[in-house]
Amino acid sequence: MKVHNFNAGPSILPNEVLYKASKALIDFEGSGMSILEIGHRTPLFQAVLDEARDLVKELMQLEDDFEVLYLHGGATTQFMQIPLNLLENDGTASYIDTGVWSNKAIKEAKQYGFVDVAGSSKDSNYNHIPKQFSVSPKSTYLHITTNNTIYGTQWQKMPETDVPLIADMSSDILSRSLDFNKFTLIYAGAQKNMGAAGTTLVIVRKSALGKVTRKIPTILDYRNHIENGSMLNTPPVFAIYISMLTLRWLKEQGGAAAMEIENEKKAGLLYNEIDQNPLFRGTAQKEDRSRMNVSFIMDKPELEEEFLKFCKKEDIVGIKGHRLVGGFRASLYNALPYESVEVLVEAMKYFSLKKA
Amino acid sequence: MKVHNFNAGPSILPNEVLYKASKALIDFEGSGMSILEIGHRTPLFQAVLDEARDLVKELMQLEDDFEVLYLHGGATTQFMQIPLNLLENDGTASYIDTGVWSNKAIKEAKQYGFVDVAGSSKDSNYNHIPKQFSVSPKSTYLHITTNNTIYGTQWQKMPETDVPLIADMSSDILSRSLDFNKFTLIYAGAQKNMGAAGTTLVIVRKSALGKVTRKIPTILDYRNHIENGSMLNTPPVFAIYISMLTLRWLKEQGGAAAMEIENEKKAGLLYNEIDQNPLFRGTAQKEDRSRMNVSFIMDKPELEEEFLKFCKKEDIVGIKGHRLVGGFRASLYNALPYESVEVLVEAMKYFSLKKA
Repeated sequence: MKVHNFNAGPSILPNEVLYKASKALIDFEGSGMSILEIGHRTPLFQAVLDEARDLVKELMQLEDDFEVLYLHGGATTQFMQIPLNLLENDGTASYIDTGVWSNKAIKEAKQYGFVDVAGSSKDSNYNHIPKQFSVSPKSTYLHITTNNTIYGTQWQKMPETDVPLIADMSSDILSRSLDFNKFTLIYAGAQKNMGAAGTTLVIVRKSALGKVTRKIPTILDYRNHIENGSMLNTPPVFAIYISMLTLRWLKEQGGAAAMEIENEKKAGLLYNEIDQNPLFRGTAQKEDRSRMNVSFIMDKPELEEEFLKFCKKEDIVGIKGHRLVGGFRASLYNALPYESVEVLVEAMKYFSLKKA
Repeated sequence: MKVHNFNAGPSILPNEVLYKASKALIDFEGSGMSILEIGHRTPLFQAVLDEARDLVKELMQLEDDFEVLYLHGGATTQFMQIPLNLLENDGTASYIDTGVWSNKAIKEAKQYGFVDVAGSSKDSNYNHIPKQFSVSPKSTYLHITTNNTIYGTQWQKMPETDVPLIADMSSDILSRSLDFNKFTLIYAGAQKNMGAAGTTLVIVRKSALGKVTRKIPTILDYRNHIENGSMLNTPPVFAIYISMLTLRWLKEQGGAAAMEIENEKKAGLLYNEIDQNPLFRGTAQKEDRSRMNVSFIMDKPELEEEFLKFCKKEDIVGIKGHRLVGGFRASLYNALPYESVEVLVEAMKYFSLKKA
């Protein structure tokens, strides 16, 4: 019996991924070894890595100029690795500030060049995505965070810009159809929609690299990872294996387009309840609401603790909101079944009736 | 039925670790969630991380000044992270060059300050550990690689020095009794003796940090990881869990001292055969032979391929030597049972008789 897992990340994974991985931990593909015990420079693991990268290319329909890398270090490492590789000391990069994660990226970029914060929704506690902003054509790139887990906001339409577009898609990658070829670099920690914690996907256009003059440490230079086929050093073997299995599952479900339909349904059901139920209220502006992380509060905050307890009894896990917004946050990543949202909505209805 | 796994890393793990992890992949501690699905900021994972760090402190008998960190990025990241955090631009660090991994560390350090290569065994293809070298008392630190996987050499006695001692122990950590308190910083990829690929152990004296004037990117500053209890960003949850289970197993076996006895026995058996069998010959100088990686060649290299095929038939896996040394390499990490070495020795005897 599984719980209804609304964790913000690490988060729910498809059952079939977990069962397959559980077996591979004992014996991987009849090798007599666990997936944890095989050498990374063997055909056994090369096949896993190749399939994972091919699935990324296929599911995102990437142009040939893109390289697909599975790296160590989390998206937080990318905050510094991107400007280190792309931003010249006297160059300027534009960032849209949509919350905590954008801010972390901005802070690191400032160590390497100039940062122009082209837009921000800070004044309203990041409850929306900035709509009006201008990016200098001289900017090296424009960086956005496509989905903001804490505030429950999401870019519905990608910004139109003439400068190279870079996106942190850690919390909504492959959750909807997008023209990924509009980007120059996309990165995402695997632990929400495409795997478990321990590896970070970076897709980057080869043509964007090699332009800065600074010396880059070997392990942080994307070109070295490309040259070594994502095996510059021992890769996080198991995390890449889990991502490969998750992408396989995603493909079987029909890919990003099918995920989008499913995620719209799940989010629609929950937002509908939030809007109708007198006890609850959404925190993000309607037009920018995230289909991944639904943030909501109660008008009577004194009931929050009780509702959380009630949810726990109903095997609903992980809906406590982030301290910066308060209330609740339900994360509806790809692997979360529609049924779990139904259970949450039922709980909200029942609790509301009880308190009426 | 398991194979006899002599892989150089990732490598063999204890069966009980794999079985426990296999179950945790389906349901972790009765939570109704997989170990991959739990939030990292939950009591469930905090208990795992705390136990792993406590076990490191206990098994290494570390003084209080040490901080224990589980980081992303592999030992290769440490090659640059150490000088970035410790070596001033106008400072000098001393390195002993014992092969490929030392060289990678030296290369990265040169980006941050001056490097004094205090000793090297390069001229003899690294078949021994340099014995005579002098380290300037002005050196910021002395860096050694305690075990050299490719060449099968190992420091038997740690160098006496007045400057802070730093060691890459990726391939022999906790495989023998050592006074770890003689060091200022020790690092090790987990995937050989203490877990699986995907996390790197860094133990560092707090008192050594905060002395360089350069600005350090947030994710690369050890002090930030210390302040955040190894959870500056989402940690590699599963890799830390596997390391915790492996350390638990290690403690049950009797800790580093017991491992040393076992590893001496295994290495003794194999070196004895190499020295007696007319077909084989060790590559490292006897006094510096590694108990972790046994490198050996054949006087008739034309038989190597046949011997490898014969071993494969006997379910002996991972003994092909590194291309820089050739021949064979048998890695005898903590989790490898004595019985596997017996099987390899039998195969060597049998093959030798057949060819006599």
